[in-house]
Amino acid sequence: MSRAVVLLSGGLDSTTTLAVAKRDGHTLYAMSFAYGQRHALEVDAARAIAKAAGAADHVVVSIDLRVFGGSALTSDIPVPKGGTSAGTIPVTYVPARNTIFLSYALAWAEVLEAADIYIGVNALDYSGYPDCRPEFISAFENLAAKATRAGVEGSSTRIRAPLIDLTKAEIIKLGMSLGVDYSKTTSCYDPSPEGLPCGQCDSCALRLEGFRIAGVRDPLRYVHR
Amino acid sequence: MSRAVVLLSGGLDSTTTLAVAKRDGHTLYAMSFAYGQRHALEVDAARAIAKAAGAADHVVVSIDLRVFGGSALTSDIPVPKGGTSAGTIPVTYVPARNTIFLSYALAWAEVLEAADIYIGVNALDYSGYPDCRPEFISAFENLAAKATRAGVEGSSTRIRAPLIDLTKAEIIKLGMSLGVDYSKTTSCYDPSPEGLPCGQCDSCALRLEGFRIAGVRDPLRYVHR
Repeated sequence: MSRAVVLLSGGLDSTTTLAVAKRDGHTLYAMSFAYGQRHALEVDAARAIAKAAGAADHVVVSIDLRVFGGSALTSDIPVPKGGTSAGTIPVTYVPARNTIFLSYALAWAEVLEAADIYIGVNALDYSGYPDCRPEFISAFENLAAKATRAGVEGSSTRIRAPLIDLTKAEIIKLGMSLGVDYSKTTSCYDPSPEGLPCGQCDSCALRLEGFRIAGVRDPLRYVHR
Repeated sequence: MSRAVVLLSGGLDSTTTLAVAKRDGHTLYAMSFAYGQRHALEVDAARAIAKAAGAADHVVVSIDLRVFGGSALTSDIPVPKGGTSAGTIPVTYVPARNTIFLSYALAWAEVLEAADIYIGVNALDYSGYPDCRPEFISAFENLAAKATRAGVEGSSTRIRAPLIDLTKAEIIKLGMSLGVDYSKTTSCYDPSPEGLPCGQCDSCALRLEGFRIAGVRDPLRYVHR
């Protein structure tokens, strides 16, 4: 079986992506990031999800994005509530986040001699996040071909973004068909002290709307829904 | 004055690059990395060099490359001695290192609204390191145009590699013309317990040869020279 590095945040999208990589026949190497998040719930979720998927290894890379400031997810700017902000770049944007994450994934892929890197970006994100767009993924794949021993030696690293053209509802249906247990996933930007998702931030709103359209009940318990 | 992020390892090349960025009229934002190095001398050197150059800010980003293994600089594989290894990829290669470093620089550049990132890669390196070649730099610049708000809004981040076509001796001559104090720089892969450069590793050998060809005496004291 060929190896694949899978970026795994512990959210709905990356968990579905992990299931797709497994379906594609890869041995799974999951990679998560502990960064200036206000909560460590995502990393805990990622650990449980990687284990349940039978990943051969799971690394959690500590990175300090706070040194840069400039984002609600990494500083003390309040998280916006009430409604998504399609068409504009969200305040929750972390500068160059996917560039940094894919760079680490590329490093690990080089060591593992893995030819595939999976990332769970999708169409709903790329209305607002520059580094979720198809042209970003293509540009990173082109970079990877120049950056590593594998590239120099003529083999390439593919950046797989299997969700890129899917709506949230389509992602959920895909995940259900692959047996994903969404009760393990966490998507909230601003969970309660007990770790419950708020049900009101952009991320919760998108998720709940996706489950509604998919005709499936979200197994998570919310503070508000 | 426009802002520039400058990758600063504390070595000869990056210190010369910092001086070039200053000559180019930029306000300097120096960025160093503390990673799985066996010695912290480089970071101490970088701090002194950034201060001496009048940098507006200097950040040291802690990153843990050890999670990936695979390199003499980040694990316990012995550093090779005696002769450089032109034409092959050195065992001291850190996987995807410059990709990771430039990704962090891009994040900071986005927050600072800096349009230029300087990196001190040069021709001597790119015989062996994939991510020191001109085509890598071009590919990263292309990625940057897709990855950030600035890119989306039509402005681009330039990746400046002013040493890329220079020999070590030419770099030293350039630095001398810009007033660089090379006694502050450190280049050794394997310094003595007292912090003296060994004079024998690939990096020391290249540096000493560069000073010899430039007709300048290296101000550093070596264990062996």
